[in-house]
Formats: sequence, structure tokens, C-alpha cells
Amino acid sequence: MKNFKITQDGTEIYLGDGETKRMGELVKKYKGKKVLLVYGKESIKKNGLYEKIVFQLKENSIEHFDLSGVKPNPILEKVEEGIEICKRERIDFILAVGGGSVIDSAKAIAGGALDSGSVWDYYQQLRAPKEALPLGVVLTIPATGSESNPYTVLSYKDEKRGTGSPHFIPKFAILDPENTLTLPSNQTAFGVVDMFLHICEQYFHNEYTPIQDGISEGLLRGVIEIGKGLLQSPNDKNLRAASLWAGNIALSGFLAKGVNGGDWSSHSIEHEISAINDIAHGAGLAVIFPAWLEYVSKKNPKKIEQFGKYVFEMDSIESTIKAVRDFFESLSVSTFITDNSIKISDFDKIATQATKFGDIGGYVKLKKDDIKEILKIAIK
Amino acid sequence: MKNFKITQDGTEIYLGDGETKRMGELVKKYKGKKVLLVYGKESIKKNGLYEKIVFQLKENSIEHFDLSGVKPNPILEKVEEGIEICKRERIDFILAVGGGSVIDSAKAIAGGALDSGSVWDYYQQLRAPKEALPLGVVLTIPATGSESNPYTVLSYKDEKRGTGSPHFIPKFAILDPENTLTLPSNQTAFGVVDMFLHICEQYFHNEYTPIQDGISEGLLRGVIEIGKGLLQSPNDKNLRAASLWAGNIALSGFLAKGVNGGDWSSHSIEHEISAINDIAHGAGLAVIFPAWLEYVSKKNPKKIEQFGKYVFEMDSIESTIKAVRDFFESLSVSTFITDNSIKISDFDKIATQATKFGDIGGYVKLKKDDIKEILKIAIK
Repeated sequence: MKNFKITQDGTEIYLGDGETKRMGELVKKYKGKKVLLVYGKESIKKNGLYEKIVFQLKENSIEHFDLSGVKPNPILEKVEEGIEICKRERIDFILAVGGGSVIDSAKAIAGGALDSGSVWDYYQQLRAPKEALPLGVVLTIPATGSESNPYTVLSYKDEKRGTGSPHFIPKFAILDPENTLTLPSNQTAFGVVDMFLHICEQYFHNEYTPIQDGISEGLLRGVIEIGKGLLQSPNDKNLRAASLWAGNIALSGFLAKGVNGGDWSSHSIEHEISAINDIAHGAGLAVIFPAWLEYVSKKNPKKIEQFGKYVFEMDSIESTIKAVRDFFESLSVSTFITDNSIKISDFDKIATQATKFGDIGGYVKLKKDDIKEILKIAIK
Repeated sequence: MKNFKITQDGTEIYLGDGETKRMGELVKKYKGKKVLLVYGKESIKKNGLYEKIVFQLKENSIEHFDLSGVKPNPILEKVEEGIEICKRERIDFILAVGGGSVIDSAKAIAGGALDSGSVWDYYQQLRAPKEALPLGVVLTIPATGSESNPYTVLSYKDEKRGTGSPHFIPKFAILDPENTLTLPSNQTAFGVVDMFLHICEQYFHNEYTPIQDGISEGLLRGVIEIGKGLLQSPNDKNLRAASLWAGNIALSGFLAKGVNGGDWSSHSIEHEISAINDIAHGAGLAVIFPAWLEYVSKKNPKKIEQFGKYVFEMDSIESTIKAVRDFFESLSVSTFITDNSIKISDFDKIATQATKFGDIGGYVKLKKDDIKEILKIAIK
């Protein structure tokens, strides 16, 4: 795969081997002089990425402050820590180096840095940010599409909530396969499940959109292929680049153009699960989606039949659901709750929280009791 | 299909029913005060589009001058007429209302208006434009993708040549299905063939690009579906909108991201045919592409087998080529030269011109004699 640049809906995306070298100049282009560097674990120090970034910042006379330790299922407290640094040090640019959790936190910090109230208000849909600091991304985990979209998900206490704002759209995103080579196999697999789901959740609706459907079905086949390929060849830069591209398209907004919302039930239910259990987002999705497919196929089989035919070459819903499970399991991602990480006693709470703002689902509408049934299928 | 906006690589695209109403404001946004309105036949006067546009221009206090009569396979002389008006009237914005021929001419005019030399130099690859007037598009024929890409094709004497420049990328493009409802069925069909070919010509290469492949295969299936659908229901706005979206994606540059050039042989050969015969571009392509498939499948079958499997559910090259012919014929577009429009005595000239700048083709390299063989298959 050749390196390339694409600008879509406000983000300059640079994809390909070695593209990290553009980072310093890009921060400069967007007038960054005092940067908050947001990242997660120390892995970027081990693989040399941190050093490369700091070198480029210095080379461009850009000062930086660090916020490290952002965790999967990112939390409000860490965001508040970042906001405090921004205000104290008069930070003018946020650089997120990581995956979805880091980028989502960086978005909240970018908004909070220019806000006198709490950013948790955004996630509670109480008010929207009026402005935000400019944000750039060096992506290390392909999965969430957050590197070029307006969305962010954050947790506070037992709640995990998502929101979006045009002010959160990153100015640039660097998708360099080199930076994903050291990704552990389970995180690679969870990322593949997450992007697979993002495509599915925009695909399942009841409108007639043949162009978007065809693109999504083909993209899903591509994701299956690179998912399996990466298991065998985790150091293949071409596969890593393809995975970065797939993850971006999956939730850049492109697939949603012309589509009336899709069906985000699996994500909504999973968010409630990982709000009260510290399990990986991809692991939660792999458990919920097949159960969702099974449950809603009884009420509205049409698009699931189409999905089976064009993504898996299957001619029955049963074999389609099995093919989805087989794919996830082939990535060593479990599709049933077997380790008691999600407790039956929590089902009611999960279902209540997921429907807090009303029924969910654009393909099949789900009430609280429907969600409990889906959870039962997931645990059987 | 819901209305939407997407901005990609410099063009604001507004797609959906009624989006034409934004035109006046968009011209104003890009500082247009004296506009050259470029269009083809009088059809936009008959269907009311011309009146709508002039009304919006007046409403925004924008003066306009007309250049009408741009023909399919657009010619340099008409472009020069437009450039003359631009220079004489100090035009500051070009508004193209039409399909590929009108937009391609408008691009040349936009460049020529700020150039003291001949724009034909661009097409001869002698020099590139250094600047161009800003350009906007109201698309009436979905097919070429020219509404949001840097490319333009023009004819002069017996030569038809293409070129591209970042200065030619339109500032905005309005893709309103309302404006395509009166498109005659043969033009609808030629447009479908053209977009089908654009996807194929980026798809046929020898690199491993699973994501781009999957997307292209799915998009091709979508194009087949809307092509057949429009034959039955030419007034279906949803199908017309889908066709606009497909034609745009097909050559917006999106499919080419990460791909190493593709194989544009069918287009190259067709350009030489329509340079000396006044046949529609889509009609020429429908004759050449199946012949090209047949010829190159003997040398490099792999991707054609993949194409057959995922686009047509065929398991042999023979049945795949038949499926392509059947699809084009189902649109009443002939896939063999039967009307003597392309003469055997011209084969040598066509093949010589097509290879003027060297061998062509990224999937299978073609020399002059190979092209003559392809033409022989097309005429059998």
C-alpha cells in the first residue's frame, strides 16, 4: 500500500510507513507552541515513539508538557488533570499519542481547557462545547476512528457516556504502521472487532442505500481478511497500514453519509457493561453483537440475510451468526460470557442504564427487557 | 437516502434533494461577483434549472455571463471562447452546470483565464497551470467524478488528452437528484458504464490492497443495482441520489488512496476512439472493457477471478466477462462494435496514439500491437 494523504471533513490524514516524521511540522502549521502530550502506558517510551516525538517538537521549538497514564475506558479524573495543566501552563495545542481512549480524553481536555465549567456536562448532554484547543493525533491503535471524527467516550463513576462536537475534530492524524507494530495481539484483535462493529452498526438500518451497503459489505470482508492476516503476520506493515485505513473509514463519518443513523445498540449495551466491569471494549462487543444478531433476527431478518450473503457467503441466519462467532473466536476473542466478568445480577442495571435516554436501536427498537434477553443469550 | 455534506480533499459536496438552493450562497462564500456560467445544451432551460440558478445569482447580487453549447467530447475552441469572455469581462468565478464535458471545459477555462499562453499546453504535458479561477459545480450527469477531482479531458483536432491540477479542484459541488431526473435513458446508462469503469480501472493492479478491493467490489455491486433500478424507475430520486454518490466516489480520489495507479488502459484506448469518432465515452468504454478483460485474462487472470467472484458471484473468467457484457447490454449499451462507428482501418492510428507516451496499463502492460488485438476482440 502506497502512502497517501486524504483530507475529509476537517482532518488531514497522513497514512503510511514513516509518516510520523510530519508531526512536528503539522503542530507548527496549527500554531502549536506549548503542547500537552497525552498518552497512555509507558509503551511509547519502550518502542521509541516518545523519543521521536519529543525530538520533532524540540526541532520545531515547541515546548511540551506530559499527561501520561490514560487508561482504557478513560475516566473523567484524568481528563481534569489534563485540563488543569492546560490552564496553568497556557497550553495552545493538544497532541494525542495513542488509541481511542487517549484521543477521546484529549478531546475532552481540548474542550475543558477553554471552559470554566465541568466537561462532564457535555457527556450528560447538558450543554455543548463552544470552542476547543486544536488537537492532533499520532495513532497507535487502529480501532475507534476517533482520530478524525467528532466523537468521544468517557467514564465517570459507574457511567460511560459518549458525545460529539465539531470542535473536537482533530486537525491532523498520523496513521503510521510503524507505530502499531508493537501492539499486543489481544489489542490488535479487539481493535479489529471494534472496527467490524462500527461498520455493522452503521449498516443495520431499514433504508434503501445500495451504495453504502455495498461499500460496507466489501469493507467488512476486507476487515476479516486483515484480522486473520495480522494473527499470522503481526509485523507485516502492509497489513498494519490496511488495518489503520479500515479503522479510519469505519468511523470517519464516510459510511454514515446519507444513512439515517444506523443501529448502535451493541455499542450502547457494551458501554454500560464496561462502565461497571473493567473489560476491553472490543471484548464486550464480541459478546454482545452475536447475541444482538440472534435476538433481532427474529424480529427483522432482512438485512441480516443480506449481511450473511455478501459478507460471509452464507445463506441462512444461523450460519451467518456462527460465521461471526467463528471470526471473532479465530482472533481469540470470546463470544460468550464465560468468565463471570459480567454478572447476571447486573443485567437489570445494564439494561436500565442503556435505556436511560429512551429506547435504543434504529434497525430494531429495544426496550429494557429486550436488552436483558440479549444479555441472556450472551451468557448461555 | 438522507441529504448530507462531505468535504474531501478541497471540495464541499452537498448531496441530496433540494441542495441546489445552496448554490448562490456558495458562490458568494467563494467571493464570486462576476460569474461565467458554463453549460451544454438548452436542456437546463427546459427543465427549469437555468432559471433557478439565475434567480439565486441575482438574489445574491452576482452578475453572470453565459457560455453555452459545450458538447460531449468537449473541444478546445469552446474553451477558448470561454477564456476570452473571462478576460474581457474580468470574470472571478466559474460555475459549471452540467456533466463531465461541461466541468472539464470549465476547469480549462478557469486555468486559461489567468494564463497568457494556450491551455492546450497543459493537456500536452508541456507545462502545468500555476493558478486558476475558483470553480463551482451543479452536477446534472453523474458519471465522471469531475465535480470534485483535479482532472479534465479535452479534444483538439484528432487528439483527446487528459490532465490534472490541484488548481482545478472545484470549491463546491451540488449533487441534487432533482437535476438528473430529465436525463435521457441512454445518457443515464453511459454514465453508469463510465462510473463502473472508473472503479474497475483503479481496482485492476497487482498490489495487495484488501480494504480498497473490498470497497470497490461492493461499490461495483451497488452500481449494478442502481443501473438496473434506474432503467425501471428513472424518476426515483433515491436511486438518482445513489447514482450521484456512486459516481462521485468512483473518481473522487477516495478509491485511489494507497493504490499504485491502477490500470487505465480502457480509458486510454477509448479516448483515442472518441477523438476520431464522435461516439459517447460510455459507449466506447462498454465496447473496450470486455475486450480488454478477455485479452489480459490470458496474461494475468488473478484479479479478474477475484473480480468475478465478489462482484458477479461467478467462478470462471468466461462467465465473468459474459456477466459484464450482460450488465452493459441490460442497460441497452452495446458491447461489440456493430455499427461500423470504429473502422478497422483506424485501428493502427488508435493504437499508435494510445501509446504515444509509451506502453500503457498497470495491471498488464500493453504495447501498440496488444491494443490492436483488443480492438479486434471488440469488433468480432
